[in-house]
Amino acid sequence: MDDIKQSLKVVRLGIDTYKEAVIYIREDSFVCQAEGFEAQARIRVRFEDTHIIATLNTIKSNILKVGYAGLSEHAIELLGVKEGDEIYLSHPEPLLSLRKVRAKIYGNRLSGEDFTEIINDIVAGRLSDIHISSFLTACAGNHLDQEEILGLTKSMIDAGARIAWPSQLIVDKHCVGGLPGNKTSLIVVPIVAAFGLIIPKTSSRAITSAAGTADTMETLAPVDLSFSKMQAVVEKENGCLVWGGSVLLSPADDVLIRVEQALDLDGEGQLVASVLSKKVAAGSNHVVIDIPIGSTAKVRDRESAEIISNYLTKIGKKLGLDVKVVYTDGSQPVGNGIGPALSARDVLAVLQGSKDAPQDLRDRALDLAGHTLEFSERVKSGIGRKMAEKVLSSGRAWHKFQAICEAQGGMRELPKAKFTHTVTANLAGKVQAIDNRRIARVGKLAGAPLAKAAGVDLHVKVDAKVEKKQPLFTVHAESQGELEYALNFVKADGELIQIGE
Amino acid sequence: MDDIKQSLKVVRLGIDTYKEAVIYIREDSFVCQAEGFEAQARIRVRFEDTHIIATLNTIKSNILKVGYAGLSEHAIELLGVKEGDEIYLSHPEPLLSLRKVRAKIYGNRLSGEDFTEIINDIVAGRLSDIHISSFLTACAGNHLDQEEILGLTKSMIDAGARIAWPSQLIVDKHCVGGLPGNKTSLIVVPIVAAFGLIIPKTSSRAITSAAGTADTMETLAPVDLSFSKMQAVVEKENGCLVWGGSVLLSPADDVLIRVEQALDLDGEGQLVASVLSKKVAAGSNHVVIDIPIGSTAKVRDRESAEIISNYLTKIGKKLGLDVKVVYTDGSQPVGNGIGPALSARDVLAVLQGSKDAPQDLRDRALDLAGHTLEFSERVKSGIGRKMAEKVLSSGRAWHKFQAICEAQGGMRELPKAKFTHTVTANLAGKVQAIDNRRIARVGKLAGAPLAKAAGVDLHVKVDAKVEKKQPLFTVHAESQGELEYALNFVKADGELIQIGE
Repeated sequence: MDDIKQSLKVVRLGIDTYKEAVIYIREDSFVCQAEGFEAQARIRVRFEDTHIIATLNTIKSNILKVGYAGLSEHAIELLGVKEGDEIYLSHPEPLLSLRKVRAKIYGNRLSGEDFTEIINDIVAGRLSDIHISSFLTACAGNHLDQEEILGLTKSMIDAGARIAWPSQLIVDKHCVGGLPGNKTSLIVVPIVAAFGLIIPKTSSRAITSAAGTADTMETLAPVDLSFSKMQAVVEKENGCLVWGGSVLLSPADDVLIRVEQALDLDGEGQLVASVLSKKVAAGSNHVVIDIPIGSTAKVRDRESAEIISNYLTKIGKKLGLDVKVVYTDGSQPVGNGIGPALSARDVLAVLQGSKDAPQDLRDRALDLAGHTLEFSERVKSGIGRKMAEKVLSSGRAWHKFQAICEAQGGMRELPKAKFTHTVTANLAGKVQAIDNRRIARVGKLAGAPLAKAAGVDLHVKVDAKVEKKQPLFTVHAESQGELEYALNFVKADGELIQIGE
Repeated sequence: MDDIKQSLKVVRLGIDTYKEAVIYIREDSFVCQAEGFEAQARIRVRFEDTHIIATLNTIKSNILKVGYAGLSEHAIELLGVKEGDEIYLSHPEPLLSLRKVRAKIYGNRLSGEDFTEIINDIVAGRLSDIHISSFLTACAGNHLDQEEILGLTKSMIDAGARIAWPSQLIVDKHCVGGLPGNKTSLIVVPIVAAFGLIIPKTSSRAITSAAGTADTMETLAPVDLSFSKMQAVVEKENGCLVWGGSVLLSPADDVLIRVEQALDLDGEGQLVASVLSKKVAAGSNHVVIDIPIGSTAKVRDRESAEIISNYLTKIGKKLGLDVKVVYTDGSQPVGNGIGPALSARDVLAVLQGSKDAPQDLRDRALDLAGHTLEFSERVKSGIGRKMAEKVLSSGRAWHKFQAICEAQGGMRELPKAKFTHTVTANLAGKVQAIDNRRIARVGKLAGAPLAKAAGVDLHVKVDAKVEKKQPLFTVHAESQGELEYALNFVKADGELIQIGE
């Protein structure tokens, strides 16, 4: 569609709306007069050869001069503009993808092309958060069948980059998530790589948790590697532990997860497409997927786990992916540390074979490494775990981990928090339950993962006997304000750790 | 939940996000460090005894000083703050209503209490647009049964004010909408009131259309009446034509409609609850509901109309409302003028009995007035339209209309647009179709309803024979920029008026 004649000059207001493109225009401009009545009016914004669709917010003050328009940080990034650049506005074309979303709402099946239409509009920023929320809601509640999940997964893969490795067997390991302190990847990768298999592991940063695997790894080594640097690391060491965001695998997934988190909604179809699209894009062909089951984990019962497992293996197969699902205990956090540096501390203890290493983390990592090793022809079914244990106990995994850190840019010293506060039991008894979601939230409110040393250090686990006033956990923060902000939540929410008779 | 200790001072950035509460906080504050990673992080904001939940946007520039927070216009209004006031932040409690929305997504029935929980959170601004979008999507696609629609309607009524009239028979008239230029209310109300029935009509302003009934009426008289002033007008003249927004009837509806518009989604349950909640809250007990059916109207076919009609009458009955549904032709705009002043011009022509009054508008208004009159014991079934015609032809309706305008604050002169452009036929033939949605959009882009004189004046109707270069419609605007903005849309979208052999 043609631009309107008048251009506007870009002003950087410095407003971060996270991943939503917003344009700020004076209310006395005719664009606002025409569009501004409408909530979430969408405007096409062009700079040179690039255009985006942005949501209109009108400005009633003098933070903008006549002839200027503000853009949110995300819009500036998408358009590649700087202050003073001239942008042109026009009406966005009607979106075919919205019709597809409506078809889904009314119970129709979507084809692969339909999903491609929707996913491409999401990646290009043509759908607003309101539209994405509607799409996710329409697909949740078991409204996608197997064929549709396959179509969704394929369209998510095609929307991003895809890595090809010059090897037959490329293994990977993934956890469906929801368990704070779960950092088995940092132990599994060096075991598997030391054994001799290729495991190019990409991980995400935290979204609502206190630390993603990439955040934890980043306290020990750089994770923000270019694609060619990542290849070099894998070539040299058989494995890597890098941040997936820098290599643009399945970019739609990042947008979808963001809105899902706001809705606190995890559709099974979406979850399956999210996991498989990232793994296929990363170039792996054999994957162990860990599904922790627990009432405060992402997957709450065995029945849901089996539905997801069935989809993962069947759809994975159609995508050339050999998927082995492992159910694990998801009733409480893994290890003691929750938060990047505290998690990394636990990992080092396991790798170095310290006496005080958290046994649950060690066991879990060995199980998963064992299953991964069994993808190799050299490892018979049932003996993977034993082989993994051998690699770990011999120090070869610790050696490999250090080598990977060196290859990624050099090993780092762990930071320590300046401010801590220990929460104690207000009665004697036995620990009945630890709420994964709330304990993760405490870590996050204390500043993790941005503040690397922040988080929660657990002193008890489920079934532990505690005395009155015995320490339950310590909150770590890098500033007094963050510590208080987290403790404010702890205080109001007494049942983080449930103690009973 | 307790506030965190530190307060922030309010700054009015003048950002209008329409009806969404947004708080802008510097990224170097610990609140942003803890929450800002998350998209759509929600913060509880307290001022004195009032609190709201706002969405967090982080600020990376110097438009805010340390210790200050910006609020969107809507948040300022909800909290009742002014610049410099001290606000306190805390974590919002988990929302029970979100659990109810999730239950609906997974196919469960919602109870009346569940809807009350959701609607109350919507009215209080505790749900973000993302959440509301999810709720609307989960309910659309015929996912609400009759009992659920009743529950939703009741909760919407209870969330707002309710008018009681000291009379037995209170009639009303409503159109389900979607037809540009449809302003029959301005003719029906004076006919019915002149006949002697009580008809306290409240109308909405335009949301995505070029003129709501309240916008059209406002070009002829004030519509922004207080509740007591409205009562006085009805007492004196039997009827009124005021804006419903000033009397706070079914406030949830305004929020829901806004998000529905962004989604371009009209769930039947939502539509029924929207209409009935407004009518019951306005205190009427006998209502004629006009459902225009047409491929570009809100209701696209007879089948959908019958589903909606069935719900309206049955659920209406349970709420003490006698509903009579009338199906009308929804294939094209009503009358010639689209936009506030152009619509009002058509209305005056009909009321004054001008020779060039649009016959379709006159017919439609007489039909609806006839049905409304038949609610009276004095009017036998089948003769309502004749009686209505008598009241109109005699000049009594025109007299009554003037009296209502005077009672509402005085009759006004119609404004005229300074800038016009006439679009002509690019081939000879017969008019096959006029796209209601797109022609309304042209009027809106030309500045209507904010610019009262702006809009579209149609020169042809469906089935008219046209010569090449014959005028099809004239776009009216109050500024050159708005005229161009609208014409830019017309140019790109050739098929507004479809001409065939």
